[in-house]
Amino acid sequence: MQSTRNVKAPVFNPITGAIRALAMDAVQQANSGHPGAPMGMAEIAEVLWRHHLKHNPANPKWADRDRFVLSNGHGSMLIYALLHLTGYDLPIEELKRFRQLHSKTPGHPEYGYAPGIETTTGPLGQGITNAVGMALAEKILAAEFNRPGHEVVNHHTYVFLGDGCLMEGISHEACSLAGTWGLGKLVAFYDDNNISIDGHVDGWFTDDTPKRFEAYGWQVIRDVQGHDPVAIEAAIQQAKANTAQPTLICCKTIIGAGAPNKQDSHDVHGAPLGAAEIEAARAHIGWNHPPFEIPADVYAAWDARAKGAEREAEWNAAFAAYRAAHPELAAEFERRMAGELPADWDAHVAAVLAKVADKAETIATRKASQNSIEAYAPKLPELLGGSADLAGSNLTLWSGAKGVSKSSGGNYVYYGVREFGMAAIANGTSLHGGLIPYTATFLMFSEYARNALRMAALMKVRQIFVFTHDSIGLGEDGPTHQPVEQTATLRLIPNMDVWRPCDTTESAVAWASAIERRDGPTSMCFSRQNLPFQARTAEQVAAIRKGGYVLSEAAGGKPQAVIIATGSEVALAIAAQKTLAEQGVAVRVVSMPSTNVFDRQDAAYKANVLPAGLPRVAVEAGCTDGWYKYVGLEGRVIGIDRFGESAPAGELFKYFGITADAVVQAVKSVL
Amino acid sequence: MQSTRNVKAPVFNPITGAIRALAMDAVQQANSGHPGAPMGMAEIAEVLWRHHLKHNPANPKWADRDRFVLSNGHGSMLIYALLHLTGYDLPIEELKRFRQLHSKTPGHPEYGYAPGIETTTGPLGQGITNAVGMALAEKILAAEFNRPGHEVVNHHTYVFLGDGCLMEGISHEACSLAGTWGLGKLVAFYDDNNISIDGHVDGWFTDDTPKRFEAYGWQVIRDVQGHDPVAIEAAIQQAKANTAQPTLICCKTIIGAGAPNKQDSHDVHGAPLGAAEIEAARAHIGWNHPPFEIPADVYAAWDARAKGAEREAEWNAAFAAYRAAHPELAAEFERRMAGELPADWDAHVAAVLAKVADKAETIATRKASQNSIEAYAPKLPELLGGSADLAGSNLTLWSGAKGVSKSSGGNYVYYGVREFGMAAIANGTSLHGGLIPYTATFLMFSEYARNALRMAALMKVRQIFVFTHDSIGLGEDGPTHQPVEQTATLRLIPNMDVWRPCDTTESAVAWASAIERRDGPTSMCFSRQNLPFQARTAEQVAAIRKGGYVLSEAAGGKPQAVIIATGSEVALAIAAQKTLAEQGVAVRVVSMPSTNVFDRQDAAYKANVLPAGLPRVAVEAGCTDGWYKYVGLEGRVIGIDRFGESAPAGELFKYFGITADAVVQAVKSVL
Repeated sequence: MQSTRNVKAPVFNPITGAIRALAMDAVQQANSGHPGAPMGMAEIAEVLWRHHLKHNPANPKWADRDRFVLSNGHGSMLIYALLHLTGYDLPIEELKRFRQLHSKTPGHPEYGYAPGIETTTGPLGQGITNAVGMALAEKILAAEFNRPGHEVVNHHTYVFLGDGCLMEGISHEACSLAGTWGLGKLVAFYDDNNISIDGHVDGWFTDDTPKRFEAYGWQVIRDVQGHDPVAIEAAIQQAKANTAQPTLICCKTIIGAGAPNKQDSHDVHGAPLGAAEIEAARAHIGWNHPPFEIPADVYAAWDARAKGAEREAEWNAAFAAYRAAHPELAAEFERRMAGELPADWDAHVAAVLAKVADKAETIATRKASQNSIEAYAPKLPELLGGSADLAGSNLTLWSGAKGVSKSSGGNYVYYGVREFGMAAIANGTSLHGGLIPYTATFLMFSEYARNALRMAALMKVRQIFVFTHDSIGLGEDGPTHQPVEQTATLRLIPNMDVWRPCDTTESAVAWASAIERRDGPTSMCFSRQNLPFQARTAEQVAAIRKGGYVLSEAAGGKPQAVIIATGSEVALAIAAQKTLAEQGVAVRVVSMPSTNVFDRQDAAYKANVLPAGLPRVAVEAGCTDGWYKYVGLEGRVIGIDRFGESAPAGELFKYFGITADAVVQAVKSVL
Repeated sequence: MQSTRNVKAPVFNPITGAIRALAMDAVQQANSGHPGAPMGMAEIAEVLWRHHLKHNPANPKWADRDRFVLSNGHGSMLIYALLHLTGYDLPIEELKRFRQLHSKTPGHPEYGYAPGIETTTGPLGQGITNAVGMALAEKILAAEFNRPGHEVVNHHTYVFLGDGCLMEGISHEACSLAGTWGLGKLVAFYDDNNISIDGHVDGWFTDDTPKRFEAYGWQVIRDVQGHDPVAIEAAIQQAKANTAQPTLICCKTIIGAGAPNKQDSHDVHGAPLGAAEIEAARAHIGWNHPPFEIPADVYAAWDARAKGAEREAEWNAAFAAYRAAHPELAAEFERRMAGELPADWDAHVAAVLAKVADKAETIATRKASQNSIEAYAPKLPELLGGSADLAGSNLTLWSGAKGVSKSSGGNYVYYGVREFGMAAIANGTSLHGGLIPYTATFLMFSEYARNALRMAALMKVRQIFVFTHDSIGLGEDGPTHQPVEQTATLRLIPNMDVWRPCDTTESAVAWASAIERRDGPTSMCFSRQNLPFQARTAEQVAAIRKGGYVLSEAAGGKPQAVIIATGSEVALAIAAQKTLAEQGVAVRVVSMPSTNVFDRQDAAYKANVLPAGLPRVAVEAGCTDGWYKYVGLEGRVIGIDRFGESAPAGELFKYFGITADAVVQAVKSVL
């Protein structure tokens, strides 16, 4: 059979038949899912996974395994079939429970569910971008740890992607950088099947994709017959031979190949084939087994366990030799890949905080953030910094920062103006292991990266987001650059810790918490403008870790009201407290740099900080809605529920009524 | 002078000198801003604005004017200088107040401030994307309204853009589509100055940009000397001669050209030059006038008023001839460009709502949305539909939908998998006038478009966002596709109206409200799954427009508590009300499809719906924080503050405790 695009149909066999059968049967059983991509990419997967992929199903965490990313994540049954067939701990029962509650086989591949899933995919374009991050991590770690005769870091990153990934803008950001960095061990397979959900893509996707990737500096292998194992093998060989450029292998395929009546149409993209078509497909591909039954010889042909164990054993031997020659490097590599902090970390943090308290500096918290980096980074070679073309504004460089380039590793990435790509690349470097990425942009442009922040939180990735210019305090650049709702919306992402520190000490604590956090990302919102230092007892410094704490108790310890503030508004709260005291009103000031962390405290602690029955006022230069959770219907919130304006910062705070006087009036109104 | 990139330096003259002087002096006076781009693009601007741009400074709203977009919006002083010099109502006093509160010259160009600003730019990549939308609007309107011998719609769209715009992923989405659609009247000038904020771009931007744009199907004019008027003129001629493809003119420029010591470096990008360098620049470019003083002959050379009036008069005459030949078309064109709805609109809406009530259908609200489109669209040829490759899932097609293509206009756009590009293109089509765009994707992927939604709200653009699959109710696709926090975060965007209808009637009202709204965008969140119809009196139907209303009063009219619900949870609230009534507890059910609209109601109405002192429970299958604003510290909120799971929808609602029984228990707990 030839399609109009001159695609050669597959020569069906039981090896690829197992993938096609598992995909169509699991989707049918779930009555939901995407059979088209697994059936269309069966030959590509077979050649890559049986003849090239370096992996050990018994140890999905082997440090030097090849990484495999299914960027077209809706084709999840492809990777579940591959993991099952090659011998991962993913029994057939899990495939039968595809897309069911608490199975290891959710609708899209999710990191942390099935072993061997390297990243969560589904939101298009982010998988290829994670993969760029993994290949970047490999490059950086290789430069740092390999020594002559000892290539302990040396693996490929393979990606499958489809038209959807290529249409998404993030693919431009990521693939441009992959070319700039010369990521020679990154190999992407483009499933060029000419179909997306709305039908044949000719009406909305007419890019010359090979030419586009050549413009990025990639090696492009054009017109590969995607159902021809010989052609695929040759392309992979060519890709691996070129170590100076990433490679895009353009595979012409037939979506749903094997389903005789539905293939090559969007009918096969995202819905079960139906009993009749499945029966026809079984006949067409010569697969005569009941659903979820795989003959022993087919299992044997796929089984990667023996070869995988052998390859890992070889690497272990090589690593033992490396350890003998470079014991400190080997120990450091193991620490880093385990994600452990240095043994003296806690003591170091304590020393840093003591110094910060001594200095008592009035500086912008973005500068306090830079000082924190400067203080912590020398202890942490795994910190991989970066900014989306705002290094000098975000203040993310430090004295030991060394830029990554095509010809070298380093610990700082110049991402260019690519916020979404940056965040998703850093998700990939974090998932790879060995590095803790921090990335930066203006708080406003967290929006460009929004779904990658969410993916970091969903995957529980250790990534640190530095967001500066955190309110109308940025001044003249105006409403397009002035965050109003951004801090509030970040707080709503489940599992995202958000900090908005008020001074140098809270900034240093926020940074330490972010670095120590192992089960999710942290966003930190820093000011452009100077903020005064707040004096604290040792107990108060410790309490910052609880997200909210009493920064300044009412005179006499008997508050009539509580003012809750964050970041740049803490100083206003303190000023209001003083004015109110002069007027005989005793109020407590609670600094709440992280509402998320505060919410996790026990009820007793929370009631201690915010005693029941005391009227409350919250102040934050941002939208107010979220604060009613803390002040209730009878409380007052001072904030901004409209867009900002272009003017000097000081004028704006007055214009929008974010002043100590407004706080004073609000407190009086709730007494 | 030759730079290392073989860029010819400008031959300075007073015409371009006026731009350079105004830019450096205004930035200096504001002590903030970006002189580099205006000084580097002065020659390009001079040739385009003095010799090609079709505009009439006296009437910035002339329907057939050329559109000009400064996508590198940080260079705002360039467009302010051009508007001032050519005779727009932007006096020199406004330039002196650059970046000050309530001036017409904010830090970035903002739509609605200075006349002649076609769109708000600053967030990089969105300006070029708006421009693609404007050129698309021109193409569609030309196809619809022009008749042989009557070219009433026939203008160009010109864009200036820089490296930052080209690095952003959205430029890929927009420019790919511009090529696919063959937008021959779109001309973009690439300010290729090799500098971004972090310095020379070689370390992070190595694309072969001309090749990239050729891959999109653009005409690319390479290596144009950007300070040579003759070369620029020739390039514009070539661009205009090609009506089948958009054109990218790659202009080699020197950033900050004219500042002898700082040009060609990032020092000139985003900070004032300083007094000394400004003095040196004055000498270098031969400009001997004090700040903000322009000689009369220079004003005369720039003045576009006479020529503009003449060109508009010609068009008016042509339009009069068109009106004579095609009176109905002419009247329709004027109605459309004025943004007025048809005269019988209100009656039509009433008839639609009556029919919906009669049918009383239990269907998914995404289907109810499609029915609304089907009901309203025949009255509104200005509705320009579309979806990011999910037409069949978002249900945005209707019986009269006709796809836009390279060879034809239409009223439906297949955007491909490009959510951010889609939203920002639609901002451009809306700003152009004559069309009301609605766009669609899954609610989750509103995140990919996030900052374009914000820009729509900031610019008060009439755009309608259709977001389907609005909760865990989407089921098996799992947490990557299940919105939890998205509805809540949309509500936090100032000036964004967000609706989450519970049935066919609320869906039809939401659609009518969105269409009628003239001062901002509307987001509508629709279910994948069926939702039961709710019976209402005429008064209740009318009250939907208030955003929240009593859907079902407590038996006897004496509620002991209030349940507030939205969308798919309204039916749970009604079921809970019934169970509670059986147990002797009388509760009121408030449906609140739009919290934003409800918040705008007067205090009396709000107190009537939510009487003070009555305990309250809110239920919504999403994150809970925002609801404390309505239920207070003593109320209860039933929702989901964690990520979803992959499983059939019915199981998920039970697993996450979003059930009528949970509502019953919550009400009892607050009594």
